Amino acid sequence: MKAAVWYGKKDIRVEERFIAQLGQNDVKINVAWAGICGSDLHEYSHGPIQIPVDKEDPLTGNQAPLTMGHEFAGIVEEVGENVTKYKKGDRVTVNPGVTYGVKDDSIDIYDGYAAIGLHTDGGFAETVVVNEKHVYNLPHSLTLEDGALIEPMAVGVQAIKEANFRIGQTVAIVGAGPIGLLTIVAAKAAGASKIIAMDLSDTRLEKAKEVGATHVINSGNLDPVSEVKKIEPDGVDASFEVAGVEPTFKQAVQMTKARGTVTVISIFAKPISFNPMSLTTSGVKITSTFAYEPITFQQTIDMMANGQLKPQGIVTGRIELDDIVEAGFEALSNDKSQAKILVGISKEK
Amino acid sequence: MKAAVWYGKKDIRVEERFIAQLGQNDVKINVAWAGICGSDLHEYSHGPIQIPVDKEDPLTGNQAPLTMGHEFAGIVEEVGENVTKYKKGDRVTVNPGVTYGVKDDSIDIYDGYAAIGLHTDGGFAETVVVNEKHVYNLPHSLTLEDGALIEPMAVGVQAIKEANFRIGQTVAIVGAGPIGLLTIVAAKAAGASKIIAMDLSDTRLEKAKEVGATHVINSGNLDPVSEVKKIEPDGVDASFEVAGVEPTFKQAVQMTKARGTVTVISIFAKPISFNPMSLTTSGVKITSTFAYEPITFQQTIDMMANGQLKPQGIVTGRIELDDIVEAGFEALSNDKSQAKILVGISKEK
Repeated sequence: MKAAVWYGKKDIRVEERFIAQLGQNDVKINVAWAGICGSDLHEYSHGPIQIPVDKEDPLTGNQAPLTMGHEFAGIVEEVGENVTKYKKGDRVTVNPGVTYGVKDDSIDIYDGYAAIGLHTDGGFAETVVVNEKHVYNLPHSLTLEDGALIEPMAVGVQAIKEANFRIGQTVAIVGAGPIGLLTIVAAKAAGASKIIAMDLSDTRLEKAKEVGATHVINSGNLDPVSEVKKIEPDGVDASFEVAGVEPTFKQAVQMTKARGTVTVISIFAKPISFNPMSLTTSGVKITSTFAYEPITFQQTIDMMANGQLKPQGIVTGRIELDDIVEAGFEALSNDKSQAKILVGISKEK
Repeated sequence: MKAAVWYGKKDIRVEERFIAQLGQNDVKINVAWAGICGSDLHEYSHGPIQIPVDKEDPLTGNQAPLTMGHEFAGIVEEVGENVTKYKKGDRVTVNPGVTYGVKDDSIDIYDGYAAIGLHTDGGFAETVVVNEKHVYNLPHSLTLEDGALIEPMAVGVQAIKEANFRIGQTVAIVGAGPIGLLTIVAAKAAGASKIIAMDLSDTRLEKAKEVGATHVINSGNLDPVSEVKKIEPDGVDASFEVAGVEPTFKQAVQMTKARGTVTVISIFAKPISFNPMSLTTSGVKITSTFAYEPITFQQTIDMMANGQLKPQGIVTGRIELDDIVEAGFEALSNDKSQAKILVGISKEK
């Protein structure tokens, strides 16, 4: 079968790849749609970051070359002999998180975390085999394309949970890339009264408005902290850092009200200079989010199914697997108007 | 009257000073005991830090030279014509916080904060005049010496509140200076099941054990993170950063369990290098504490009065006002076995 395999930085090859053996508890899925994530892009542009290269990942036992793709949905082709919950023809999506599973769900991901599509073969492939515990049924109201958006949408939902967000509160989204946009979608679903998005790209800010931002600020033209304070003089209740650099981290603290919360969503490539006094004198708290709890994944499916969460607007492109490098990774690297690109794979899509 | 007046770094003078005019809502107090705080020491050694020098403080309207001292208790000498709650002879202590008072108590201190004894004349004096809103009656069970410990004790109580601490949880105290010790006292009162204190000084660690630490670690001899994890393999529920430097900040994050809280109490003199990924991969949250809400001040009085809080063990010296520079500031600078030094002032002490 065909797959997009990561061999190294700037070296992703669409090639024939073996299909993993179907274990007793496994489900074989013909992938319909798979989204390209910022993490995938980092592995392409600057990797290896998470992908295990020199030795096997302790959780999955695998190492590069590996098929990427951890946001996907498809149709069950075959199930292992112990699998009773799924059958051929089911429309499913996959929670790619691999954990030791010995701690409570709320802290399990902090005990060790790997992902299907980063630490073992994933969904940029015609077929993928995963343990049934990763598989979730798609409700009838969701398309297979919707199914590929559940994983990143769950990241936004978990971020809102981590902020202890309550209906009516005000939100700042510092960085309107795909995850920033999905955090806007989640904040809207959670009842935010104001959602202020900021970015350097007007195109992204337009997209932010489309998915629910009530105010947008181009941080390249205006000081985002003072602009936020024109809208909310005391600052917002909850800010979300989705850019991952020192200036945006500091801005997030400064635009948050006393006793409000900054939630770090982004991956920081390097340490920043930080004075804890910026918290002491403001009462601002720092929390973070990483992936999502399993319950959040199911809740995200349910909320997308009933229309409370509408992430579909973030899709800016649909491409073929053969074109994933140029029309996918390179396009995302070079064109800031791109947000989420979906790769259409199986004929049944 | 005699007072210890800050003129500049390493320049505190015990000299005759005017007594402020008694306003209609003011209380004149003959100071019995006043404690030397770490903030006072910073102003002596490295100041000016908080003390207004070049212009008047916006909240108090005053500037240096100023009488220091913000932890004190004494006896009411005279009251302004509008004051009905206090009368000559009352035993009182003072909450030194000066705020604009336009916001809710929970966030008022973040709207602007000054202190009697730093931004206007304070308690290292025979007599001090303060607005009655700063004055609290001392219960009969508390001595005037106890009264001088209420202010720093309230800092420890507020820190435990900020950590959202619950009975039974485990605590790490990173730095066993006076505020670290008082946080131990507060953690014990809050029902901590384990209180692990660390410091570079064995003398301070002995003191930590006296006031309630269940375990102590000399961070100069042993790696505090791995030592804490010998006691609590997953880390503690709540760590308190009371040292104010980069290594202790990082240690505090590392010794805290997933979804646990680091509470920053200390004043950081400069920025640190910090990677937000240390939060993202651990789920550890950063909060901070600054002074205390007015209700915390009263609760601290009540808990000291009924014996739930016993900060008295932190007192390592009692001196006269005339000796405050050598036996107070210099002793605290040079002798790490010193924790809290109290200055005895009025004859009625």
